[in-house]
Amino acid sequence: MRSRPVPELVAAAVDGDRLALARVLSLVERGGPQSREVSRLAFPEGGEAHTVGITGAPGAGKSTLTDQIIRLIRKDRDSQVAVLAVDPSSPRTGGAFLGDRVRMQDHATDPGVFIRSMASRGHLGGLALATPEAIRVLDASGFPVVIVETVGVGQVEIEVAGAADTTVVVVNPGWGDAIQANKAGLIEVADIFVINKSDRPGSEEVERDLNWALDQTMWPVWRPPILRTVGPSGEGVEELVSVIADHRGTLEKSGELAERRSRRLTDELAEIVARRLELKALETVGESRFDELRTEMAARRLDPHTAADRILAVSLGSENG
Amino acid sequence: MRSRPVPELVAAAVDGDRLALARVLSLVERGGPQSREVSRLAFPEGGEAHTVGITGAPGAGKSTLTDQIIRLIRKDRDSQVAVLAVDPSSPRTGGAFLGDRVRMQDHATDPGVFIRSMASRGHLGGLALATPEAIRVLDASGFPVVIVETVGVGQVEIEVAGAADTTVVVVNPGWGDAIQANKAGLIEVADIFVINKSDRPGSEEVERDLNWALDQTMWPVWRPPILRTVGPSGEGVEELVSVIADHRGTLEKSGELAERRSRRLTDELAEIVARRLELKALETVGESRFDELRTEMAARRLDPHTAADRILAVSLGSENG
Repeated sequence: MRSRPVPELVAAAVDGDRLALARVLSLVERGGPQSREVSRLAFPEGGEAHTVGITGAPGAGKSTLTDQIIRLIRKDRDSQVAVLAVDPSSPRTGGAFLGDRVRMQDHATDPGVFIRSMASRGHLGGLALATPEAIRVLDASGFPVVIVETVGVGQVEIEVAGAADTTVVVVNPGWGDAIQANKAGLIEVADIFVINKSDRPGSEEVERDLNWALDQTMWPVWRPPILRTVGPSGEGVEELVSVIADHRGTLEKSGELAERRSRRLTDELAEIVARRLELKALETVGESRFDELRTEMAARRLDPHTAADRILAVSLGSENG
Repeated sequence: MRSRPVPELVAAAVDGDRLALARVLSLVERGGPQSREVSRLAFPEGGEAHTVGITGAPGAGKSTLTDQIIRLIRKDRDSQVAVLAVDPSSPRTGGAFLGDRVRMQDHATDPGVFIRSMASRGHLGGLALATPEAIRVLDASGFPVVIVETVGVGQVEIEVAGAADTTVVVVNPGWGDAIQANKAGLIEVADIFVINKSDRPGSEEVERDLNWALDQTMWPVWRPPILRTVGPSGEGVEELVSVIADHRGTLEKSGELAERRSRRLTDELAEIVARRLELKALETVGESRFDELRTEMAARRLDPHTAADRILAVSLGSENG
């Protein structure tokens, strides 16, 4: 594997070379200047893909559902689909959620389906910044639908899912407590709720809980509908795919799609600026000076704001940052 | 209420003036230069308090438990305690979780108990930065125990709870799914697990689930114990308070307490630097130029990294940031 120049790799990926695409995504995952170059090159080529986030707790059946969605999309042999499986692994416990994604490898030999798992590796800003970059690459590579599957409903997952045009939150019957626990976060992120495994008892209660939570907010453009599916049989998946398309249509007509995307780009820009400046400031200050500041703080001779003043003074060449 | 100078207010708060303390905390909540001044003044005065985070989903019984812990601490009339109730309210749904904290107002007339709710308001960096500052003020004011109560187990809550020396995660019988959903996050943040409402059926299953999750990791210094409590009767609370003290003792002996605190300060410092540089960069670039960049990005003529380059070029006076 000789190292091809980044512009050549991106051009090949955009032209449909899947091996090149995989290597470009590895650059994105790794972060750094090559990742930035990818972003610059891929960005003008995209904008057409419908990005769909699928999130929910482990065990909710996201992978089976994604698998069924792929099957349905691929019934029309002209339609291609990409899946980005994102794993925000915790620092202490590590990520062990990739196992059930193996199921999706059924599609490994179908050239119309591209599946990729992604962890954060060294990417500056982590998955919250790596994911939108990877989505842009898949978008530029001509996939009309890009599915982003994430595990969990914590803040990182919500940010990652928020990088999609349409976010589907998967819950199960009997999950009253889990819903109660994450109510605010769920309502914030969901465009569509899916009660998966709805052949089990308890769907009504979950639907009632969700409806109650939804009633607490005004929904001028789109109130998240609550659908029911059974992953293994594919029951309800056709309706889900049609509602996903409806959502995109509604967003587009109302002008909300352009607004959402612009807001996302603005947030991303602010985060890139913050992370790059932070890195630059810490570099300018130097490791030994930084360690001195840490020691001073630990001894309570220096508070974090004054320490920040010192770093900013060095990095910006002024007294008060 | 004439406006007293910040140093005078902080000195009064440190001397035990509760009204001054409340006003200092309002400054912290609001953020800005006065908040930084507070941080600078309060920091050298503290370091003795044992900070205890109590987190868990809404309905877990955190407030009742906190109430019982306060009662127990206050049995010894010389011992004072402060409670910081932190509400990371979601942008769309708003925070509506303060209701059940009213219960704690039983202690409103007890001068040995200080209770304060906190939202993020305009604080730069939000609650993740405002909370450690508020804790430092309470610490400097001489409270030997500062309890930080947060709602939920998302990323923000974990960050907030991580600002404590000892973090107690409260779960309930029958919460297998909620635990499964947040396994990685829970294990990462918990020093002590409490199965509250343990008089209800299902405690064994929750304990088994937690133990299984704990078994996946090595615990060289302290393996989080799993306790059982019944909030309203106070059953198990005495053991909880004693285990909280044990945890602090173990951390102190192993050197982990100093290390944790130093790590927290370093993370806080990096975050302050990032947020202040971001703010400064956006100010330097100016609103109209920033709006231009947004428009260019929305039209896909400019990718976020190149936009960041332009901002960094203006703010740092160089080409590549």
